[in-house]
Amino acid sequence: MRASRFFVSTLKEAPSDAEIISHKLMMRAGMIKRLGSGIYTYMPMGLRVIRKVEAIVREEMNRAGAVELLMPVVQPAELWQETGRWDKMGPELMRVKDRHGRDYAIQPTSEEVVTDVARSEIRSYRQLPVNFYHIQTKFRDERRPRFGLMRGREFTMKDAYSFDRDVEGMQKSYRIMYDAYTRIFNRFGLQFRAVAADNGAIGGSGSHEFHVIADTGEDALVYCPTSDYAANIEAAEALAPAGERAAAAEPLTKTATPNKTRCEDVAEFLNLPLARTVKSIVLTVDAAEEGGEKTLWLLLLRGDHELNEVKVAKIPGLAEFRFAGASEIVEWFGSEPGYLGPIGTRKPVNIVADRAVANMSDFICGANEEGFHYTGANWGRDIPQPIVHDIRNVVEGDPSPDGKGVLAIQRGIEVGHVFQLGTRYSKDMNATFLDVDGKPALMQMGCYGIGITRILGAAIEQNFDERGIIWPASIAPFQVVLCPMGYDRSETVRNETERLYAALQSAGIDVILDDRGERPGAMFADWELIGVPHRVVIGDRGLKEGMLEYQGRRDAAATGVPVEQMADFIRDKLAA
Amino acid sequence: MRASRFFVSTLKEAPSDAEIISHKLMMRAGMIKRLGSGIYTYMPMGLRVIRKVEAIVREEMNRAGAVELLMPVVQPAELWQETGRWDKMGPELMRVKDRHGRDYAIQPTSEEVVTDVARSEIRSYRQLPVNFYHIQTKFRDERRPRFGLMRGREFTMKDAYSFDRDVEGMQKSYRIMYDAYTRIFNRFGLQFRAVAADNGAIGGSGSHEFHVIADTGEDALVYCPTSDYAANIEAAEALAPAGERAAAAEPLTKTATPNKTRCEDVAEFLNLPLARTVKSIVLTVDAAEEGGEKTLWLLLLRGDHELNEVKVAKIPGLAEFRFAGASEIVEWFGSEPGYLGPIGTRKPVNIVADRAVANMSDFICGANEEGFHYTGANWGRDIPQPIVHDIRNVVEGDPSPDGKGVLAIQRGIEVGHVFQLGTRYSKDMNATFLDVDGKPALMQMGCYGIGITRILGAAIEQNFDERGIIWPASIAPFQVVLCPMGYDRSETVRNETERLYAALQSAGIDVILDDRGERPGAMFADWELIGVPHRVVIGDRGLKEGMLEYQGRRDAAATGVPVEQMADFIRDKLAA
Repeated sequence: MRASRFFVSTLKEAPSDAEIISHKLMMRAGMIKRLGSGIYTYMPMGLRVIRKVEAIVREEMNRAGAVELLMPVVQPAELWQETGRWDKMGPELMRVKDRHGRDYAIQPTSEEVVTDVARSEIRSYRQLPVNFYHIQTKFRDERRPRFGLMRGREFTMKDAYSFDRDVEGMQKSYRIMYDAYTRIFNRFGLQFRAVAADNGAIGGSGSHEFHVIADTGEDALVYCPTSDYAANIEAAEALAPAGERAAAAEPLTKTATPNKTRCEDVAEFLNLPLARTVKSIVLTVDAAEEGGEKTLWLLLLRGDHELNEVKVAKIPGLAEFRFAGASEIVEWFGSEPGYLGPIGTRKPVNIVADRAVANMSDFICGANEEGFHYTGANWGRDIPQPIVHDIRNVVEGDPSPDGKGVLAIQRGIEVGHVFQLGTRYSKDMNATFLDVDGKPALMQMGCYGIGITRILGAAIEQNFDERGIIWPASIAPFQVVLCPMGYDRSETVRNETERLYAALQSAGIDVILDDRGERPGAMFADWELIGVPHRVVIGDRGLKEGMLEYQGRRDAAATGVPVEQMADFIRDKLAA
Repeated sequence: MRASRFFVSTLKEAPSDAEIISHKLMMRAGMIKRLGSGIYTYMPMGLRVIRKVEAIVREEMNRAGAVELLMPVVQPAELWQETGRWDKMGPELMRVKDRHGRDYAIQPTSEEVVTDVARSEIRSYRQLPVNFYHIQTKFRDERRPRFGLMRGREFTMKDAYSFDRDVEGMQKSYRIMYDAYTRIFNRFGLQFRAVAADNGAIGGSGSHEFHVIADTGEDALVYCPTSDYAANIEAAEALAPAGERAAAAEPLTKTATPNKTRCEDVAEFLNLPLARTVKSIVLTVDAAEEGGEKTLWLLLLRGDHELNEVKVAKIPGLAEFRFAGASEIVEWFGSEPGYLGPIGTRKPVNIVADRAVANMSDFICGANEEGFHYTGANWGRDIPQPIVHDIRNVVEGDPSPDGKGVLAIQRGIEVGHVFQLGTRYSKDMNATFLDVDGKPALMQMGCYGIGITRILGAAIEQNFDERGIIWPASIAPFQVVLCPMGYDRSETVRNETERLYAALQSAGIDVILDDRGERPGAMFADWELIGVPHRVVIGDRGLKEGMLEYQGRRDAAATGVPVEQMADFIRDKLAA
C-alpha cells in the first residue's frame, strides 16, 4: 500500500471525552471516528486491524471444525420471547418496530436465532456435533458507553454455538473451543490468561473468560503461580482458614467508639489489628409476592476483606438482594450504619458470616448503638452460630483452592468467553433431535464469544508508550513502514525504496510506503503513533555507504542494515 | 473442505412462499433460511457465495484506489435531519429509539455519515480526491418484501462515495467506478449490461445502472445492437417521428362506438390500425397551498404506446402528479373514462401530446360523450396545438437516440448503480474544503452501490436448469466437487480421492470432497441443486482402467479422463 492512496489522518491531541489510553490513541491515530455515544466509524487504519483480527479468528474457528454462517442483525421478538429474554434483558436490548408495528431486537447476541436454525435443520444424532459461528455487528444499549471500542454500543463480535448429543459431547466441543481460543490469542501476540468464570446471566454449567493482561483492566484475575489454577476474582474461592477456631478468651465488652464508623478507624482507635474487626453489611430481599414480608440479612466480613457480590447472589434466598436503605437499617438494627453488629438487633435478621469471620474469636463488632462497639465477641457464647458462606474476594497470599500454592492477582480485560450452556436454550425452544434410540432428546449447547473490536482496545492497553501504539505484528495495520527521505527529490532514494517495497510485497509482507512527502519528523511521529512495528528509513546519506536504517517500534535506536540484506532482515524479524 | 465437516442441507421442495426460481433454489439448496419477513440467515453454503462476491468487489474497489472503512448500522437521526431525508424517506427507513429516547436510523445507505466523515477529515484540496467504501449490513423496511434475497429487508451492500474538488474530478471518479464495476461483473462471470438510468430520489446529475440480464428481470433495458447506446426504459428517449405531420385529409366525424372503451376495441370496431388511435390519460395535480385549485392534465399517447411515468414527472408542473379519480374525470370531461379526448372538455385541462401523437393527423380519439369517438381529428384545425413532450416508453424497432440504429429490449435485474451526486449532500451538510485559492468550496460527490446479496439471486435467475443452480466458477460455493463411489468401502477409491483432493487443494482450487456416504443418486442431486460447476466421480470400475469421470454442470454427459491427468484437466477448465 502507498500512503498517498490510503487515508492517514492523525491528531496531535485526543478529544476530551477519551478517558483511557487506548481510546485516546485510537482517536489520535485516526483508527476510529465517533459518530454518536458508543457508536464509531471504523476508519481505514482501524478497519485493517479489525480485518486481521477477524482473519485469525476465522482461520482458527474453521480449523476447529466450526462452520461459518451469518445471522441477521434485526431479529424477530418472537424468538426472544420464547426464551424469556425479551422481558429479562431490560433496556440494554435495543428494540425496534417495523412499519407494521411488529417487534424486533437489534441483536446483542444470537442464542435464540441459532437455536431456531438448529431445531429446524438438525433432525438426527447423525448431524451432531455441529458448531455454527458468525462474525457480526452487535448492539448493546449500554447505560454509560465509554472507553471507545472497549465499552461501545455497536461492536463486532464473533459468536459460536455448539450443539451436541450429550453432556460429554458438549464438554468435548467446549474443550475444542478453549484450545482454539488459546491458539487465537497466541497468534494475536498478546499476553493473556484464561480464567474460570462465573456463569452470569447467560446461565449454564461452566465457563472460562479469556483476558488480555493490562494494568488498566476492569477485572481482577486470580491465579496460582505454582499451579494452573486461574479464576476471575468473582469466581475464585476463598478457602476456610486452616485450623480450629480459638476458644473465647476475652469477656464481651461494650466500648465507646465515638465517631468511629469504619473498621479502619475503630482498629486504630482501639490500637488493635484491622483483622480483629468484623464489618457489617446489610442486604434486603423484598417480598416475592404482594403482601409478603421483606427480609433483612446481615453479612459479616473481616475488616480487611471485601464483599464478593457474585458469591452473595448464589446464597439460597439472596438471588434478588439489594443493599438496605438507611431507614430500613435503623428500623431493624436500632442504630445508624457504622455501629452495626450481630448482637442485639431490634428485629430479627438472617446472619451470614464469611468463612474467615466464622473462624474468629474475641472479635470487634458494632454494638447496634451509636458510638459503641463490642470487643471480645465470640460465636456460641455471645451470638448463635451463624450460617457460613464464602462471601469475600480472595486477596494476594490466600491459599490456592487447588492446594498447590498461594494466590496472586493481576488485572485483565475480558476479550473472550466460553460457556457450557447445557439445555438452557434448547429446553425453552424445544430444540430436539432423534437420538440413537429413536427418541427425541434436547441438544446440549455451548456458546463462545470473542469481542473482535474490543481486542483493539485491549491490545493497546497492553502495548503502548509515550509515542503511541505498539501493535503486535500479526494484527498491526501494516507490518512494515518504509520512510524514504526525499522520495520526490532523490532518484536514488526513490529507486531503492521501490525496489525494497517490491521485494517485501513479493515476500507476502504487509508493507506501507510513505510517499506523502511529509517532513521526516512528522512522518516518523505518525507511524510511531499508529504503531507499525517495523520501520525502514531510506536516505541518501546511508545509501552512499550501501546502508538502510531499521528500527523496531520498541527499539531505543536504529540499526544499520546493508541494502541488499534488508528484505531478509525484515523477514527474519517477522518470523521471530 | 470435506462435506462431513461442512453443513449441507438440501430440500426436495421449496417452501410455498418462494415465488421465483432463485428464491426457490436458494431455499432448496440450503443457502438461506428465512427468519422473518424479508430477513434471512445466510447459511454456510450461501455465505460462501457471498464471501466470494465480496472478495471480488473488494479487490476491484481497492485496485480502483477506493479506501475501505466501516460505517455503523445504527446512525444518529441528527445527520439524517440535516439532509432532510429523516422526513422524506417515509416508512422504508427503519427508526429506533435508544434508552434515552434519542432517535436513530438503521442505515439503508450512508450518504449522511460519509459526508460527515469527509467534512471533518478533509480540510484541503490536497486531500482530494478520495473514495471511501464499505461493505455493510443494510435495512430497508419494504412494504412487501419478497423474492428471497432479491427484495429483502436486511441485506448486504457495498456502497462507495467519492469526493472531488470539482465537477471534472467527480466525472473522472465516476468513470473509474464505472470501469471497476465493469471488471467486477465480468469477473462474476455474469451476462450484464450497463444502462443510462434515471436519477430517481437520490438526486444528482448522471447515473448508470448495472443489470444482470435475465428474462425474469423487473426492469426493461433498451439498447442499440449497432451502437453502444443503452438505457433503462425509464430513461430511454423516444425520438420524434421523422418527417412533417401529414395535412388533414378527413373531416372530423363523431362516430358511435358503443361499449368500446379501449383503443384496441375501437380500432377493431372501426377496422382501422391501432396506431391511428389516440389514448387519453388523465392526471391530477393537487393544489400546492391551502385554498389553491387543483389542475387536470390530459396526456395523449398513440393507442399502441405505453406511458412512461418517470418522463411525465419531469414535465414542469407535473412533478407531484397522481392519476385522476373517476369523479374528477366526469367533472372535467363530462364523460366517463373510455370516451375521453382533447375536443370539447367540460372544464379546461392542460393537454400534453406525446411526440408521436403530435405528428399524427386524421386520428381517432374519444368525443367526451359516452359511446362516441371522433375520427378524422387534426391538430390546428380541430384542436389547438398541444404542449409536446416525450412521455412514452420506447418500443423495439424505435430509432436509437444516438441515430446509429434501431432499439432492442431485454429484461434485467439491477445489481449496481453509479451516481453523480454533485453537491446534493455536501451542500445540505456544508462539506467544504479549502481550495487552491484558499477559499472554502463544496465537495463534489459521487455514490456507487452494489447489492452484494442480490447478486446471488440475479446470478441464479440467469443460470439455472431443471436440476438446480449453475454457478459461474468465480462465485460458486465450491468450484469442484469430488464424488467418490464407496469412499468408506473401497480403499482404492479412498486413496485416489484423497490424492486428487490434495492435488486440487495445493493448486489453490476450492474443492469439496463429499465424504458423507450418501447414495450416488442423492449425492449427485445435491451438488447439481447446489450448482457446483465441476464434478469428478471416482469409482472402482473406472479406476480399473485408470479413468475418472468429469462432468461440467452444463454438460449433457460425463467425460472419461485418465487419473493422472485430472488435476490438470480441472485447472484448464477453471482457467478457460
